[in-house]
Formats: sequence, C-alpha cells, structure tokens
Amino acid sequence: MVKKPAPSTTRRSEKSRRAIYDAALALVAEVGYPRTTIEGIAARAGVGKQTIYRWWSSKADVLLEAFLDLSARTAGDTGEEPHAIPDTGDLAADIKAVLRATVDQLKDPRFEIPSRALAAEGVVNEQVGREYMTTLMEPAIRLYVDRLRAAQDAGQLRADIDPRIALEFFIAPLAQRWLQYTGPITYAYTDTLVDYALGGLAPRTPDVPSGTPERGPVGP
Amino acid sequence: MVKKPAPSTTRRSEKSRRAIYDAALALVAEVGYPRTTIEGIAARAGVGKQTIYRWWSSKADVLLEAFLDLSARTAGDTGEEPHAIPDTGDLAADIKAVLRATVDQLKDPRFEIPSRALAAEGVVNEQVGREYMTTLMEPAIRLYVDRLRAAQDAGQLRADIDPRIALEFFIAPLAQRWLQYTGPITYAYTDTLVDYALGGLAPRTPDVPSGTPERGPVGP
Repeated sequence: MVKKPAPSTTRRSEKSRRAIYDAALALVAEVGYPRTTIEGIAARAGVGKQTIYRWWSSKADVLLEAFLDLSARTAGDTGEEPHAIPDTGDLAADIKAVLRATVDQLKDPRFEIPSRALAAEGVVNEQVGREYMTTLMEPAIRLYVDRLRAAQDAGQLRADIDPRIALEFFIAPLAQRWLQYTGPITYAYTDTLVDYALGGLAPRTPDVPSGTPERGPVGP
Repeated sequence: MVKKPAPSTTRRSEKSRRAIYDAALALVAEVGYPRTTIEGIAARAGVGKQTIYRWWSSKADVLLEAFLDLSARTAGDTGEEPHAIPDTGDLAADIKAVLRATVDQLKDPRFEIPSRALAAEGVVNEQVGREYMTTLMEPAIRLYVDRLRAAQDAGQLRADIDPRIALEFFIAPLAQRWLQYTGPITYAYTDTLVDYALGGLAPRTPDVPSGTPERGPVGP
C-alpha cells in the first residue's frame, strides 16, 4: 500500500495559512479592525502580500476565515462538538451543556480579544456586521433551530413557538453580558436562563385569581 | 410679583452646553470614539477648549452626558415617559408598550448613529463599556426591575424569579438584533418576545406524556 506523502508545497501552504491566521488575529486584537491591513498581516506572518491576495480578496475575508478556524479550535478545546447540539432527549440539559461551553469560549483570551475587535467593528460597519453574522453566527444559530425543532417533535417545546426567535433567549442575554458588561458570565447564570425560558416567567398556576369578577360581590 | 429673568450668562451657558452635546454626538458618529477629541468637539461647537474642561474632565464624560441628554430627548419624542414603565395591571401590555418605544428609538437616526459608535467602543474598551452600562443602561434596567417586582406582588410573575435576570429576555434579544444584525427589529418581534418569555417555551400541558413508563406495558 502506497501512502502518498503531502507535497512540500502543501506543507508550506498550510504553514503560511496558519501564520496568516495568527497574524490577522493578533493584529486585529492589538490595533483594531480599521488599522489592520493586508500589508501588516503579511509582514507579521512573514509572507509576501501576494501570497495573501492569492487566497483571499480582502482583509475582511482573511479575518472571517481566521475566526472560523479559531472558533473551531477553541470550541474543540472545551470538549464541545462544534457541528451539533447534543440530543439526549433532555432539552434543558442539552442547552445548558452547550451554553456552558460557550461561557468557556467567551472567557478564553485567544477567542475573546480578537472576537471583541471584530464584533465592535460590526456594530458600526454594517457590512462587516452582516458578514460576521452570516459566517460566524448563522451556523451556530442553525444548530439551535435544529435542536429546538427536534424538541418540538418530542413534545418538549410548544408547537406554536418559532425556534428562530426562541433560541434568542439562550444566546442573546449571554451575548449582551459579554458585549455590554450588563452582568457576570457564569454557568449558574446560563443554567438559570434555560430554566426561566423553558418554564416561563408567569406563574403556571396563578396564586391570585386575575380580574375583579372573582373578588366576589363586595368591592372595596 | 417679580419674575427674575435668567441671567444672560446662564442663557449663554445653556447654549454652549447644547452646542457641545451636538458637536460631541456628531463627531463620534462621523469619526468614531478613538478619533473624537476635546479639541475637535470645542472647534465644532465654536467654544474654547477651556469651556469644556470647566464642565467635564474627559471626552468620555462629555459623551456620556450628551447621550443621557439625547436619550431623554428621543424617548420624549416617541411619547415614552423615560422615568417609569407604566403599570396598568397588565404586565404583558406594559412591557410591549415600552419595547415598541425602544424599537422606535433604536431606529431613530439621531439616536442610532452616535449610539452605535459609543457601543462599539464599549465592546473593546472595558472602561467605556462599563461607564455606558452604569450611566445609560442601568437606570433603564432598574425601571424593569421595579416593574417586574410589582408584577410579582400582583401574582403576574413567578415569585421565585430574579427580576434582574428575567428582564434580560425583554432587552437582550432586541439589543443583539440591533448590535449584531441577527434579525429584523419590528413591533411584532418584540411583542412575540414578551409572549414567549411570560408563557415559557415548554408546553404548559404536555401533549405527549414524558418518560417510557406512561407508554403502557407494550413496547415497540
């Protein structure tokens, strides 16, 4: 059996690609998106500018790919399978597990610092914001939609709920605490979000009858 | 009856203050937070740098006050009373009304453009982010906490819920759609958030009995 060795050009390409990703993430973390340039990334990665232009058409493309690669790597480290949400049959437990892995990722400095730089640019630059959404967030959102649809089939989620909106109760409060410092980010917090969202904030069996008619004939 | 006229220095001060707010908001919208300077604000407002330093100690201070003033003005325009959430006895209706006013404010260009610039800086600059939170968001958050506590007293919100977390279901999904383009911002959307959050995502009376014992003695 003949095992074909990787040609040295492929090895060199892979090494360059990794160096370019690392340089792009380091630069955007240090100087922000507007001051990150293809020239700066090339110099830091020790490659020619043309090497970058051969593979990518813009700095936004380089950065988004570097982030996709980073997300896969940091998610992998935390033990999370990045391409699916587990389905053990217990919706609450499955979502809690995924959110705990997200908490770990948000607090990982390798992820946090460059991600903040890109997210900040997205807030003021709609094109970058929409590409960040489509490339980095939409795949994760689709995993939630799939898991919530399975929960609807299993009778664990109300059939009249739109999963695309429901999933926001799991990801948006955490994102806001991360982006806007509205509160601490802990496992206890994300567990609570899941319990509140599934169970609802209103009482299931009201302690107090609502409406005046039930107060009886004698008014105040 | 003697009505004391406002001294001309007060009128001049008020005019300068307004010019400084307007200049600060316009500049941060145009060039972003990092490139906004006290010198630039002073030049645009037509006042001396010392006039600004007499009232504020830093550009962050000027901007946060300009935003507080802006929030009060844009909230006032939409008919929303910025210092309270209505309590008509109908929690869902009251929160929906407030969120509709927030939708209007987020789409108001006077508010949106400078607010995005400041929010973006907050994502990468923790000090600015925390000041934005404390100065601009915390007062609104306290209004939600107060309204949700009243709802707990009225039996419309579960007594075991922490209002400080529960309110995030109302404000965080909307904030994420605004900051990260995760979806359109409409009244129908915010109304749905309120219904989902209060009612819960899980069925109140499950259609399908959970667990195998209830399936009866004959297995598949």
